[in-house]
Amino acid sequence: MPDATSLTFLLGGARSGKSAHAERLATAFPAPWTYIATAQAFDDEMVERIALHRDRRAEGWQTIDAPLDLADAITGVPDGQPLLVDCLTLWLSNHLLVDHDLERESERLEAVLAKPRGPWFVVANEVGLGIVPDNALARKFRDAAGRLNQRIAARADRVLFMVAGLPMQVK
Amino acid sequence: MPDATSLTFLLGGARSGKSAHAERLATAFPAPWTYIATAQAFDDEMVERIALHRDRRAEGWQTIDAPLDLADAITGVPDGQPLLVDCLTLWLSNHLLVDHDLERESERLEAVLAKPRGPWFVVANEVGLGIVPDNALARKFRDAAGRLNQRIAARADRVLFMVAGLPMQVK
Amino acid sequence: MPDATSLTFLLGGARSGKSAHAERLATAFPAPWTYIATAQAFDDEMVERIALHRDRRAEGWQTIDAPLDLADAITGVPDGQPLLVDCLTLWLSNHLLVDHDLERESERLEAVLAKPRGPWFVVANEVGLGIVPDNALARKFRDAAGRLNQRIAARADRVLFMVAGLPMQVK
Repeated sequence: MPDATSLTFLLGGARSGKSAHAERLATAFPAPWTYIATAQAFDDEMVERIALHRDRRAEGWQTIDAPLDLADAITGVPDGQPLLVDCLTLWLSNHLLVDHDLERESERLEAVLAKPRGPWFVVANEVGLGIVPDNALARKFRDAAGRLNQRIAARADRVLFMVAGLPMQVK
Repeated sequence: MPDATSLTFLLGGARSGKSAHAERLATAFPAPWTYIATAQAFDDEMVERIALHRDRRAEGWQTIDAPLDLADAITGVPDGQPLLVDCLTLWLSNHLLVDHDLERESERLEAVLAKPRGPWFVVANEVGLGIVPDNALARKFRDAAGRLNQRIAARADRVLFMVAGLPMQVK
Repeated sequence: MPDATSLTFLLGGARSGKSAHAERLATAFPAPWTYIATAQAFDDEMVERIALHRDRRAEGWQTIDAPLDLADAITGVPDGQPLLVDCLTLWLSNHLLVDHDLERESERLEAVLAKPRGPWFVVANEVGLGIVPDNALARKFRDAAGRLNQRIAARADRVLFMVAGLPMQVK
């Protein structure tokens, strides 16, 4: 179990069990637990994914939606309370869609996550291990996501790389 | 060397040396060895890949083709015999092509692999670490493959993540 | 710190911090350091990337451009001198673009890297962990890149898999 005041960063691919593992780690601490969701339900596929995640979570979770203002949402979480942020990569893509400055947003988020005030768990996708994408926007996003992951990993007390539902400790 | 009755799951990217490593592990046990191939030769590219894999294998291997009925093929393998299944991800894509229920098929396979009756080695691809695919079918497949990998990894006695031909022990 | 005469191979995804980490490892040895760059500036995006990498490097680096003749460039590096090659995957794609035999080129490079004459650091991309690419050329490249990575990893004294700027030791 990590320290009561520390940042754990969980990275992995699609369906690598990041969220489920992060929930297990967070609920090892006493409730109430805060869940900050960054997903936006644009279409049926996302509505279904969000519902699946929500259904899996037990009683005792308070869910906050923060598709864009993630730094503020985290700042509002009470001291000492277990927090799960899921996930940074969707949050970054939300900012990309509204043409925000991804580096400035990443920097702001980094500053808040650098000072955990409880057992904090943050989930992100690793998206840079495939072939170079054809389109320039996907390349730009892939770069920004990778840089954001480096920022947060550098600040984290513990970094886990999830493979098929199992954690590999990177830091 | 793993126990004589155990399940080893080898995960990795394209050309990460999964099959070759699995063959080395299996042939550390006495012959005869059973190789269950899930590949279907639709085109010249696949014909060539299958031939390459087949040529590499030494004498002592018995090859069974099971593009769809993998659970039955595994059930037919004699007790105590080294088994290599290569690979789950192709098998899953074969079921996708004929519009089968991927979760039901995955569940059936999991039930059989959960009870190894010899030194069993199962290979699969990790496909979820690139950028989100454009088309919905690829996303659906990526999700199903990730979930299947989680199922098998949870059952396995040992999980290896292959990087450039080298195994990293995950479990 | 690795031995003064050894090959360290750094693998990772886009923006995983491979180059920065390799530079840190190389500059732990006394200057002068040789940097062999394989990138070709075809467009503004590449011009910017190359400039970014170049700006980050401190005084004491000598940069050699070798988009194709990498084996010769490495052979020309004086004995005992720290060397950073960045990166093999771009070099391979340069050969693909001019329709060279990728296996023959990979073999030639492997022969030179198998005999390090100083603290050598070689960077490459892992590109095989996403969904299978639609087009045949991308699949061919992905296979060739994976095979090249296996060749070099087999020769290396140390292999690091970079995740979000952090090294995982594979070998």
